[in-house]
Amino acid sequence: MPHFDPAGAWRRALHLAEQAIGLSDPNPRVGCVLLSADGNELGAGHTQPAGQAHAEVMALLDAARRGNDVRGATAVVTLEPCSHHGRTPPCCDALIAAGVARVLVAVQDPNPLVAGQGAARLRAAGISVELAEPLVADAARELNIGFFSRMQRGRPFVRLKSAISLDGRTALPDGRSQWITGEAARADGHAWRKRAGAILTGIGTVLADDPRLDVRLVPTARQPLRLVLDPHGRLPAAARILQPPGEARAIGPGRADLPALLDDLGRQGINELHVEAGPTLSGAFFDAGLVDELLVYQAPMLIGEGRPLAALAPLADLGQARRWRLVEAVPVGPDLRLRLRPT
Amino acid sequence: MPHFDPAGAWRRALHLAEQAIGLSDPNPRVGCVLLSADGNELGAGHTQPAGQAHAEVMALLDAARRGNDVRGATAVVTLEPCSHHGRTPPCCDALIAAGVARVLVAVQDPNPLVAGQGAARLRAAGISVELAEPLVADAARELNIGFFSRMQRGRPFVRLKSAISLDGRTALPDGRSQWITGEAARADGHAWRKRAGAILTGIGTVLADDPRLDVRLVPTARQPLRLVLDPHGRLPAAARILQPPGEARAIGPGRADLPALLDDLGRQGINELHVEAGPTLSGAFFDAGLVDELLVYQAPMLIGEGRPLAALAPLADLGQARRWRLVEAVPVGPDLRLRLRPT
Ligand SMILES: NC(=O)c1ccc[n+]([C@@H]2O[C@H](COP(=O)([O-])OP(=O)(O)OC[C@H]3O[C@@H](n4cnc5c(N)ncnc54)[C@H](OP(=O)(O)O)[C@@H]3O)[C@@H](O)[C@H]2O)c1
Ligand SMILES: NC(=O)c1ccc[n+]([C@@H]2O[C@H](COP(=O)([O-])OP(=O)(O)OC[C@H]3O[C@@H](n4cnc5c(N)ncnc54)[C@H](OP(=O)(O)O)[C@@H]3O)[C@@H](O)[C@H]2O)c1
Repeated sequence: MPHFDPAGAWRRALHLAEQAIGLSDPNPRVGCVLLSADGNELGAGHTQPAGQAHAEVMALLDAARRGNDVRGATAVVTLEPCSHHGRTPPCCDALIAAGVARVLVAVQDPNPLVAGQGAARLRAAGISVELAEPLVADAARELNIGFFSRMQRGRPFVRLKSAISLDGRTALPDGRSQWITGEAARADGHAWRKRAGAILTGIGTVLADDPRLDVRLVPTARQPLRLVLDPHGRLPAAARILQPPGEARAIGPGRADLPALLDDLGRQGINELHVEAGPTLSGAFFDAGLVDELLVYQAPMLIGEGRPLAALAPLADLGQARRWRLVEAVPVGPDLRLRLRPT
Repeated sequence: MPHFDPAGAWRRALHLAEQAIGLSDPNPRVGCVLLSADGNELGAGHTQPAGQAHAEVMALLDAARRGNDVRGATAVVTLEPCSHHGRTPPCCDALIAAGVARVLVAVQDPNPLVAGQGAARLRAAGISVELAEPLVADAARELNIGFFSRMQRGRPFVRLKSAISLDGRTALPDGRSQWITGEAARADGHAWRKRAGAILTGIGTVLADDPRLDVRLVPTARQPLRLVLDPHGRLPAAARILQPPGEARAIGPGRADLPALLDDLGRQGINELHVEAGPTLSGAFFDAGLVDELLVYQAPMLIGEGRPLAALAPLADLGQARRWRLVEAVPVGPDLRLRLRPT
């Protein structure tokens, strides 16, 4: 006999939310599942592209399509339902109108000005609202780490990607870098690009490698915006980064002020910024303390003399070096994927 | 009711063998457990220091001490019992004299000239001999990887250790390197030193850091021999590496021929050689293709300009770089321990 299994419901809701990666930006990735008292799934959905339905409405539509009555049901949602009129009506109102009895929420709205208002509105309508345990809240927050960053800090979450050898080289002394890491790591890198609202590089990388910097090796519904920092107008019109699919823009003339650039990208609705640049621009991001996550693909080879990961300001002593926290070390093909965050 | 559990018996025997690390060199690390037909432990032991009893004899003595009759018992041994007279009589003879009925052997003697002779001698005495499954054989071989190397190639297994930053630096440009990795990594490094018959460094490291290169942070019954390559007689008499505990030697005058040095160390009974040197000597080992295992402690920090892991011969292209196979990536405190072997 089926029964209500909260852990299973959260797995399902988080899995639905993941389907919104590469689809819902700048809106958060949210999953919603509607369950009967004995745990039967009545409807399910996730956030659609901006301007279209949110997860709760998709789940209600799905239930209707399947002929399921949702009165008295439990809605399991990975983010607090919205209570404000944006491009779509508030999800709270849709849940109230549908007559659900209970709403389980993974994590509160990250916007400090609206956090808790959705829950309050539901409770005022007689609906029971419960917050999930910390593990579920963390998973929901991670999935929307860029949305949380933009709501709380006004700027994107910055993920800097680099492919290095075991001895920390990104290229031979003359700049040749194809290929340090293997195919599996490159495809994995595209999956991380896909999460980003924008991909940023420097003119040095464009002139050296003429990369496309789009999402090709994994399927996606939308392409991130591609940005090239080009202070001196050196970007060739024929550069591959300017070609479809997706949009691309040069930023210049003049050297970009990185904090101001991030604020600007935040205003443009960029949740996650994926930086894939050479040592010059990477070093500028590190020295400014603007890297929120370091995504490193480490190939099991030694290069010896070569280009560094980042050109950094000299250290007076080792105690000065910023320490990172290793979040993950996962084999990807023959390479190792490391993710680190500032301590 | 107890029953004969082969997996449990192998775990116990391998655990016993591990107790011989830092004790039995140059003899292999062997564990032996004597079990009754219904799986009761009658006696157990492991290899003692060179010239003293081997594992099988220790297990027989243990059984006698505990008043257990081992006639008809099963001996579970992590290495094929020896059949030759060395400094101690052959273990085969002891097992035959004791009247055991069955011997389970994890792996054959690595010496191609004697492999199988112990088993043959036991079988000739009417004892049933069975070889373990590959997983057990691999574990037993790994434990004695240096003994196998010396028996089969005439030279030690070379493990090169390095402590590096995420961007592959081992020190600041002026050579300061204390501390890149944390306490847990340093203690773990001592556990690997303990496995070695000898620890090798270059005069550059001695002059820069004056390291002791002994085993202090983990308990050990013996200290590895410490060796300094010192072509120009620059080793100060007061260098800490020359002080007890343990013995130390300078190798010089004249630049060491590394393959000849390894052969020589093999003849001296060194099973595992632990190389803990600067970029110059490390580079010489890599360029000569003499590194069997790369043991890297990677600290989650970026150093920028600094000393490399190894000064290597320049590569004409990336395809020329030797590829390694990542054997393990394990967090040790805040750092990451990587072990790699040549592909
Ligand atoms: N291994 C990897 O993961 C990876 C990834 C990408 C690139 N790469 C390698 O990186 C190499 C190129 O490196 P690079 O250092 O020359 O190029 P880069 O870091 O991609 O671009 C640097 C340029 O960006 C411009 N810029 C604008 N605003 C800036 C700011 N605030 N801070 C710093 N730079 C700013 C400057 O252009 P102006 O000089 O015109 O002022 C600067 O020279 C290539 O060899 C490529 O293969 C490796
Ligand atoms: N991060 C780590 O894990 C780690 C470990 C150890 C050391 N270190 C650092 O390494 C630095 C010292 O590096 P280093 O490169 O100067 O010293 P090194 O590699 O330890 O010693 C090099 C010296 O060894 C002698 N040598 C003799 N035979 C040789 C051969 N066949 N091949 C190469 N060298 C041979 C040479 O002495 P001559 O010059 O007299 O001919 C050579 O200069 C220090 O800063 C230390 O902190 C780091």
